[in-house]
Amino acid sequence: MISGTTKLIAHLGFPTESFKAPLIYNPYFDKAGIDAVVIPMGCRPADYAAFVKLVFRLSNIHGALVTMPHKVATMDLLDETSNRARVAGSANAIRLGPDGRLVGDMFDGEGFARGLARKGQAIAGSSILIVGSGGVGSAIAASLADAGARKIALYDGNEASSAGLRDRLNLYYPATEVTVGPPDPAGFDIVVNATPLGMRPGDPLPVDVSRLSPSTFVGEVVMSVAITPFLAAARDRGCAYQVGTDMLFEQIPAYLEFFDFPTTSADELRAISRL
Amino acid sequence: MISGTTKLIAHLGFPTESFKAPLIYNPYFDKAGIDAVVIPMGCRPADYAAFVKLVFRLSNIHGALVTMPHKVATMDLLDETSNRARVAGSANAIRLGPDGRLVGDMFDGEGFARGLARKGQAIAGSSILIVGSGGVGSAIAASLADAGARKIALYDGNEASSAGLRDRLNLYYPATEVTVGPPDPAGFDIVVNATPLGMRPGDPLPVDVSRLSPSTFVGEVVMSVAITPFLAAARDRGCAYQVGTDMLFEQIPAYLEFFDFPTTSADELRAISRL
Repeated sequence: MISGTTKLIAHLGFPTESFKAPLIYNPYFDKAGIDAVVIPMGCRPADYAAFVKLVFRLSNIHGALVTMPHKVATMDLLDETSNRARVAGSANAIRLGPDGRLVGDMFDGEGFARGLARKGQAIAGSSILIVGSGGVGSAIAASLADAGARKIALYDGNEASSAGLRDRLNLYYPATEVTVGPPDPAGFDIVVNATPLGMRPGDPLPVDVSRLSPSTFVGEVVMSVAITPFLAAARDRGCAYQVGTDMLFEQIPAYLEFFDFPTTSADELRAISRL
Repeated sequence: MISGTTKLIAHLGFPTESFKAPLIYNPYFDKAGIDAVVIPMGCRPADYAAFVKLVFRLSNIHGALVTMPHKVATMDLLDETSNRARVAGSANAIRLGPDGRLVGDMFDGEGFARGLARKGQAIAGSSILIVGSGGVGSAIAASLADAGARKIALYDGNEASSAGLRDRLNLYYPATEVTVGPPDPAGFDIVVNATPLGMRPGDPLPVDVSRLSPSTFVGEVVMSVAITPFLAAARDRGCAYQVGTDMLFEQIPAYLEFFDFPTTSADELRAISRL
C-alpha cells in the first residue's frame, strides 16, 4: 500500500512498456512488509542527466533501477561506483549515499555469477569463453573475474569491443588471464552466450556446438524463450546449463542488499513474481 | 498492479508523510481496473519548477496532484488554467495537454461546492460568508461564485488578503456581489470556516455562533477532527453542516473527470479508501 512514507525506487528507462522489475519487486515488497515501491519512469535520453539529479533530490527517493538505454550514461552521473561497473562500462542501480552522493553498481553479471554458484558450478579457478563483448557480456566478464575466474576468452564480431573489454579487465582484475580470439568452445569449463543470437528464429548458433564438451557448463542471456536453440543443442550434448531469466532473478537479491532491504532467494522471488 | 504500461499521477508536495491521496485514489484505481497510480514525490520548493518540467516529459506521466507548499507556485508553470484557479491564485492539479502543454485547475473549492450541492444546499442565488481569504478560502470563494452565488462576504485577519480576493472575484465573476467586512454570520444562507481555527484545542471560534440562524448551512475546512468546536456549536443551534473531509472526498470525482478517468461518487471513494 503506497503512502506518504513509502520509499521510491525509480525504474528509469525508455520506453517502459516491457519493464519486468515492478512485477517482481513490488509483490515481494508487499509480502515482506517493506514500505517501498518500484515505479516505472519513461525518461528520454535527452532528459536523463537532469532528471536523475532532480529525482534523487526528492525527500522520499531511495534508489533507482536503470535499464535501456541509460546504463552507460549513468556512469557519468555517479559519485561512487565499483570495479564491476567500471569494467562493464555501465551501471544498472543507483542508491542515495551520505550527503546526497550517488552510488552506482552493475548487477547484470552478478546475477549470472550467482546463478552459476547456486547451481554448484565453480567460478574461481575456471576457464571461461564469453561470446559477445557488449553491455551484458562486459558485465558478466566483470563479475566472473571478480569471482576469481582464472582465464577468460573473449570474442565479439566487433574486435574493438572485445579488445576494449580485455584492457579494462586487465586494469581492474590483473589476476585473471584475458585473451581475445575465435569463439571455439572446446576445452572451457564455462561457455556463455552474451549475444542476442537466439532471439529470432533462424539466428545462427553463437558457437560451434559440436566442439562443446559434455563437462562444459553453458550459460545464456537471451530471455525471450527459456530453452534457446543454443541451450537445446548444449543440453543434447549432456551439458549443464543456465537459462536467461536466471540472470534476472538471481541479481535481485544483490540489488536488495545494495538498497539495504531485507533479502530473499531468487527462487522465492520467482515464485512471488507476477511475470 | 504497477507495470510498464501504468500511467503515473505524481503527487507533488513536501514533506510527504501526511499525504492522503494515495490511500484514496490507488484503492479506487485497483477496484475500477484503471491502470494508473498516485505516487508521492517529496519535491522541495527550490527544485519544484525544474522537476515539474521534467516529470511531465516522462513517457508514462499522466498528471499531477499538487499539495503544500506548491499550489501557488504551480500557477506560473501552467500553459492553460481556469478562472477558478486564477481567482484562487493557485492550482492543485496538472494534466498533460496536447503538444506537452500543462493544463492546471484548482479543485479544493470544487469539492466544497459539490458537497453542498449533494446535501441539497443551493448555491445559485445564495448569500455566503467566508471567513479566511487564504488559499482554501480563495478556492472556495471561486467555486461558489462559479456556481452562481448571489453575494459573497469576505473576512480575513489580514485585510489585504480579503481585498485582493474581492478584486479577483470582481474581475472573473462580475455577477456575484462581493463585500469585505466583519465576520458576522447573521442573515447568511451559508457560512464557511476557511481558517485553521479548530485545529488546536483552545482555538477561538471563527464567528460568533450566537448570531447563527438555524436555517444557515455551515461548512468547515478543518479536517483534523470530524466535528470541530465550530460545527458542534452550529449543530447545537440546529444548523445543517458539512465536515472538512467532505471537501476532500467530494473533489476527487472532479479530479477524475479532469484526468479523463472513469469517475464515481464521493461515497464510494470514502468506502474504498484506506484512510
